Amino acid sequence: MKHVILGVEKFQKEVFPGKKAEFERLANGQSPEVLFITCSDSRIDPNLVTQTEPGDLFICRNAGNVIPPHSNVTGGMTASIEFAVAALGVTHIVVCGHTDCGAMKGALSPQKLDSLPHVKEWLSHCRVATEVVKERTGSAELDDNHLEEVTKENVVQQIQHLRTHPAVAAKLAAGRIQLHGWVYNIETGDVLCYDDETREFTPVNQQPGGSDAATS
Amino acid sequence: MKHVILGVEKFQKEVFPGKKAEFERLANGQSPEVLFITCSDSRIDPNLVTQTEPGDLFICRNAGNVIPPHSNVTGGMTASIEFAVAALGVTHIVVCGHTDCGAMKGALSPQKLDSLPHVKEWLSHCRVATEVVKERTGSAELDDNHLEEVTKENVVQQIQHLRTHPAVAAKLAAGRIQLHGWVYNIETGDVLCYDDETREFTPVNQQPGGSDAATS
Amino acid sequence: MKHVILGVEKFQKEVFPGKKAEFERLANGQSPEVLFITCSDSRIDPNLVTQTEPGDLFICRNAGNVIPPHSNVTGGMTASIEFAVAALGVTHIVVCGHTDCGAMKGALSPQKLDSLPHVKEWLSHCRVATEVVKERTGSAELDDNHLEEVTKENVVQQIQHLRTHPAVAAKLAAGRIQLHGWVYNIETGDVLCYDDETREFTPVNQQPGGSDAATS
Amino acid sequence: MKHVILGVEKFQKEVFPGKKAEFERLANGQSPEVLFITCSDSRIDPNLVTQTEPGDLFICRNAGNVIPPHSNVTGGMTASIEFAVAALGVTHIVVCGHTDCGAMKGALSPQKLDSLPHVKEWLSHCRVATEVVKERTGSAELDDNHLEEVTKENVVQQIQHLRTHPAVAAKLAAGRIQLHGWVYNIETGDVLCYDDETREFTPVNQQPGGSDAATS
Amino acid sequence: MKHVILGVEKFQKEVFPGKKAEFERLANGQSPEVLFITCSDSRIDPNLVTQTEPGDLFICRNAGNVIPPHSNVTGGMTASIEFAVAALGVTHIVVCGHTDCGAMKGALSPQKLDSLPHVKEWLSHCRVATEVVKERTGSAELDDNHLEEVTKENVVQQIQHLRTHPAVAAKLAAGRIQLHGWVYNIETGDVLCYDDETREFTPVNQQPGGSDAATS
Amino acid sequence: MKHVILGVEKFQKEVFPGKKAEFERLANGQSPEVLFITCSDSRIDPNLVTQTEPGDLFICRNAGNVIPPHSNVTGGMTASIEFAVAALGVTHIVVCGHTDCGAMKGALSPQKLDSLPHVKEWLSHCRVATEVVKERTGSAELDDNHLEEVTKENVVQQIQHLRTHPAVAAKLAAGRIQLHGWVYNIETGDVLCYDDETREFTPVNQQPGGSDAATS
Ligand SMILES: [Zn+2]
Ligand SMILES: [Zn+2]
Ligand SMILES: [Zn+2]
Ligand SMILES: [Zn+2]
Ligand SMILES: [Zn+2]
Ligand SMILES: [Zn+2]
Repeated sequence: MKHVILGVEKFQKEVFPGKKAEFERLANGQSPEVLFITCSDSRIDPNLVTQTEPGDLFICRNAGNVIPPHSNVTGGMTASIEFAVAALGVTHIVVCGHTDCGAMKGALSPQKLDSLPHVKEWLSHCRVATEVVKERTGSAELDDNHLEEVTKENVVQQIQHLRTHPAVAAKLAAGRIQLHGWVYNIETGDVLCYDDETREFTPVNQQPGGSDAATS
Repeated sequence: MKHVILGVEKFQKEVFPGKKAEFERLANGQSPEVLFITCSDSRIDPNLVTQTEPGDLFICRNAGNVIPPHSNVTGGMTASIEFAVAALGVTHIVVCGHTDCGAMKGALSPQKLDSLPHVKEWLSHCRVATEVVKERTGSAELDDNHLEEVTKENVVQQIQHLRTHPAVAAKLAAGRIQLHGWVYNIETGDVLCYDDETREFTPVNQQPGGSDAATS
Repeated sequence: MKHVILGVEKFQKEVFPGKKAEFERLANGQSPEVLFITCSDSRIDPNLVTQTEPGDLFICRNAGNVIPPHSNVTGGMTASIEFAVAALGVTHIVVCGHTDCGAMKGALSPQKLDSLPHVKEWLSHCRVATEVVKERTGSAELDDNHLEEVTKENVVQQIQHLRTHPAVAAKLAAGRIQLHGWVYNIETGDVLCYDDETREFTPVNQQPGGSDAATS
Repeated sequence: MKHVILGVEKFQKEVFPGKKAEFERLANGQSPEVLFITCSDSRIDPNLVTQTEPGDLFICRNAGNVIPPHSNVTGGMTASIEFAVAALGVTHIVVCGHTDCGAMKGALSPQKLDSLPHVKEWLSHCRVATEVVKERTGSAELDDNHLEEVTKENVVQQIQHLRTHPAVAAKLAAGRIQLHGWVYNIETGDVLCYDDETREFTPVNQQPGGSDAATS
Repeated sequence: MKHVILGVEKFQKEVFPGKKAEFERLANGQSPEVLFITCSDSRIDPNLVTQTEPGDLFICRNAGNVIPPHSNVTGGMTASIEFAVAALGVTHIVVCGHTDCGAMKGALSPQKLDSLPHVKEWLSHCRVATEVVKERTGSAELDDNHLEEVTKENVVQQIQHLRTHPAVAAKLAAGRIQLHGWVYNIETGDVLCYDDETREFTPVNQQPGGSDAATS
Repeated sequence: MKHVILGVEKFQKEVFPGKKAEFERLANGQSPEVLFITCSDSRIDPNLVTQTEPGDLFICRNAGNVIPPHSNVTGGMTASIEFAVAALGVTHIVVCGHTDCGAMKGALSPQKLDSLPHVKEWLSHCRVATEVVKERTGSAELDDNHLEEVTKENVVQQIQHLRTHPAVAAKLAAGRIQLHGWVYNIETGDVLCYDDETREFTPVNQQPGGSDAATS
C-alpha cells in the first residue's frame, strides 16, 4: 500500500501541475460521452487502453463486467446505468470483457465456487452465456477450452441485458444511443469488437471508417 | 466515440510496445494488493491519481462509491468484495469519494430523484450518512452546504458497511487487512484520508511515515 | 358461478364423449410445440383464436402478458418459461397482447394505480415500453391516444425480456426456437404479428407462406 | 406452428363472423364474475371444460397453479389477483389443479430438479402441500403414489395462500367472494371440488343445488 | 440503564440462588410446549402475564406481533417459527396482540409514517387487517375509533399467515398443533381469546374446562 | 398449555391487583429507555434477569438474537429497531446472547440444517461470526468447542450490524445512544459484557461505577 500513498504524492507533485487547467475546468461538472462497463480486474486500465482523459469515460466496474437484467430490485449497476443514460445523457455504452478473466473461469465451473457463495450467485447472471455455449457446441459440461467463447458470449449477453433497462431501451428506439461489445486481450493489447450483423468479433481498429460497428 | 476508438489504436501502436514485457507477465494472472472502490464519475482515474500500473489495483466503481451492507441477496459489490478479499487476498481496501459528486448531491435531495427511481433507491444506502449529518448539525433538511460533510460521512459509513461482509470481518479480526477512507478533490488534486482515532480527514501524504492512517 | 358449474356438467355429458379417445391419449403426457403467453383478460380464449386443441398450447397468463427479465429471484413466469423450454422443449413462443387492455391503460397512467399497489409494481416491467413511446414521440406524458402504440411496444419489449432467460437464449443461439409477437384485436378478430426486419406489425395470415415472420 | 397460424385464419373466416356481435359488445370492457387460476398445462382448456364464452373467466395460468402467499415483493400472481378482485370485482375464485401434473411430480421429487433451478424454487411454494402429506401419511419421502393426494392438497393450500392477499381477505370477511378448489381429471373429464366442511373432494356436478360447495 | 445493571446484580444475589436447581436443570436444553409471539412493547411481560417460568415459552417479539406469510425470502419470524415447530416440536402457538399498540396505530394511518420507512413497509403485512375492517365497516378511511377492531383482526390475520408456513400447516393437518389468538389489555390485565367457531373474542379464563378455544 | 391459561387466571387474581396503579399509568403510553434484543430461547426472561418492570424494556426476540445489516428490504428487526430508536427514542440498546444457544450450534454446523432451510438461511447473518472465529483460530471447520467463542463473536458482530441502521448510526454520531453486548449464562446466572476497548467480555456488575462499558 505504501507505493500507492507515495504515488498520490507523486501525482500531486509531478503530474497534477501539468493538468491543472484541465482539472479546474472539470471541477464543477462532467459530461462524458461514453459509459464504459468493464471487469474489476487489476490489469485493465480503461483510460490507458483508450488513451482518454479524465472526463471522457463514466466507468462502472465489477467482477465479470456483469449487467443484471432490469428488475424492480435496484442494484449498483442498474442505478449507475440509469444515472449515466438518463441524467448524464451518454450516447455510447461499451461493455468490455477481457482474456484470462477469473469471473469467466468461475462461470465455467460454478461447482468450484462453494466457498465464494456471493460470487457464485452473482455469476448466475452469466449462466445465459454458458447455456448458449453449451447448446451451440453440444457440450453437457464446459471447461477451460471454452473460456474464450464464453468470454465473448458473456459480452453479447450482457448487452442483451442492457436492452431491458428502460432508459437504454428508450434511447435505442429513438436511435440516440449505441451499444458496443468489446473483448480486451491483456497479453497482446488487442481489442476485439462485436459486429451485430456478422455476429463475429473483429479488431476494433480495423473496421471501416476507423469506427467500430455498434450494435443497435 | 471516435476518439475512443482512435485512442485504442494509439495505445496499441505507441504505448503497448513499451509495456509489452509487463503485459506478458500479467497475461496469466493478477495478484493485486489493493481493492479500490470509487465512484463511476468520469473525472476520476484511480491509476492516474495513485500513479499505479496495471496489476496494482482491483477496482470496483459505481455511482456514489456505495457498498451495500452484507445481505443474503447478492449484488455486484458484495460479490466483487468477496472475490477480492477471499479469492485474491487483497490486504488493503480503499473507499474513495470525491468532490462535486452527483450521487452525493442526489443523496442530499432525494425528492429531486423521482424521474430516476433506481438512483433514488440505490442512494438509500447513503441515507445513513445524511441521517448522521442531520443529527450532528441539528438540521431537519440538508442542502448543498452540507455536500462536503455528507461526502466525507458517506465514506466513513460505507466503510462501516464493509465491516459487515464476512470475508472482510474475518480478515479484520485477524489483523490481516486494513481499510482506508479517502476523499479526492478534483479541483486541487488533494486526497484526504480518514483517521479512525481523531475522526478527522487529513492529507494522505502528510501522515506519519508517509503512509495513511488505516482504520482497523 | 352457477352457469360455470352447469357448463362443467354440459362438458361432461355433451362434449367429452366425442373427445374421449383424444383425452385418453393425452392422459399420460403432453408435448406441446408452442408456449403461448397472453393477458388474463376474460375476452381472450387462446384455443378459440388459434382453433387449437388440448395438448397444442402450453399457456401462461397474467395481467398484461408481462415477462419479467431473468433474475435470481424466481417468479411464476420465469419458472413456467424454464419448464416449457428446457423440460418440454417447445420450439415456438408467442407473446400475445390485445386491444383495450386494462393493464396497458394502467401502464399509461401509473399515478392512477395508488389503490392497486401490486398492479402498479408489476407494471413497472412495462415501463420500458412507455419510456420507448415517450422518447419516440417526444411526449413527456402519455394518454389513451398512445394505447395502441404502447400495447404493441409492450409485446416487443417483453420479447426482449424473454431473450434474457438462459434456456431461451440458448435455444435462440442454436436456432432451435422462434419468438413471435402478436396483438389480438378483440373487436375485429384480427391478429397482427411483429416483423423483426421491418419493425412493423402486419396481419398474421397475410404473410408469405401462410406463416408469420418469427423474430430470431 | 403452421397449424396455429392457419387456425387463426380459420377462426377469422369461419368462427368470428358467427360471434361478431358478441365480440363487438366485449370490445370496450370486461366484467368477468370468476377469476380462474389453473396450470399452464397444454391439456387444459378452461373455457372448454366449463363451456364458457369470452368474457366469462379472468384466467391466470402458471406451472402448478401456484399462488404465492402475499408479500411485499410483487409477482405476476399477486398483481393479477389484486386486479381481478379489487379492480374488476370478481365474486368467485376457482383454483383448478389437474391429474398427471408435471409440476406436482416435480414437487414430489425436488432433488430431480437441479437442472431446472427456477422450477425448483417456484415449487417451494408447494412445499406446504408435500409437508402436509408427509406428516399425515407418516412418510419421510414421497413418491408417485402420493401424486393424487399432493395434487389435491396443493389446491387446498394454494387457497390458504389466497386468503393472505388483502383484497381477497377483505371480500371474504364481508362475505362478498367465494373460493373454490377443483381438480380436473384429464382422462375422464371429471371435476372434483373441495368441500371445506368435510375436507373431501367430491364431483362438482353432484353437489346439492347443482352448485359446488364454496369454501369461505 | 444504571438500574438495569443494578437489576442484574440484584438478580444474581437475591433471585438466582433460590432458582439455582431449576437453572441447572435447564442449562443443557430446552423443551418448551408453547411458541409465544407478541409485540415488542415494553409493557408486556409474557412470563408475568402467564405466570410461567423459564423454559416454558419460546418467545418471538417484534413491533406489531407480525407474522409475514411464508415466502422464499427468509426473515427472522419465518426462521424462528420453523425452529420452534420443526426442531423444538412446540404443540401450541399463541399470537398475542395488545391494547394501545403503537404499531396498530401506525397501521391505521400509514400516511403518518413517512419518516419511518421501514415501519411503514413492515406494517404492510397488517394491511390485510385494515382492508378487512374497511370492507366490513364500509369505511374508506380508518381512524383511532377502529383501533380495537384492527388490533383483534390483526391477530386473526397473522394466524392466517401462520397457516402458510409449511411446518405449521403440516402439524395442523395432522392435528398435532393448536393456534391461539389473544389480545392482552394493559390497563385491566384481561386477556381475550379468539374463538374460531363464533369468530368472537372472549375472556381466556372463562372458557369451558379452563382452557381457551384453540383455532385449528 | 393448560397451565399457561391457569397462569393468566392466577396473574389476574393474585398479581395484577397489586400492580393496578402501575398498569393504569402505563395504559396510554410507553417510554422505555432500553431496546433489549435477545434470543427466543425459552430459558431467558429479560425482565427477570434485569429485575425490571413492565415499561422498562422494549424487547425484540428471534432465534439467535440476530440483527440483519440494514438493507432496502425491510424485515421485522429493521422495522422494530427503527421504531424503538427513531419513534420511541431509546438511549441504550442491549444485544444479549446466551450459553447453550441452539441457533449458535446451528451456525457452527450449517450442513446439519438441510431440513430447516429457513433457519439455515437466517443464520447466514451469523456467518460473519463463524468466519471471524475460523480466521482467528486458524480452523477450517468449527465444532462445539468453539461454541462459547462464536456466541460472543456473534454478539460483537450483530452490534456491528446495528451500526449500519441509519437511525442508530445517527444517534451514535451525536453521542445520543449507547450499545451494549451481553452474554447470559443460563447455568450460573452470570452476565458478561463486551468492552470495546479491551475487546474482552467481563462481568457486567464488576465494572467501574456499577455500569457496564458501552461500546460507542
Ligand atoms: Zn475479469
Ligand atoms: Zn461521484
Ligand atoms: Zn390485457
Ligand atoms: Zn400441471
Ligand atoms: Zn404493540
Ligand atoms: Zn438462543
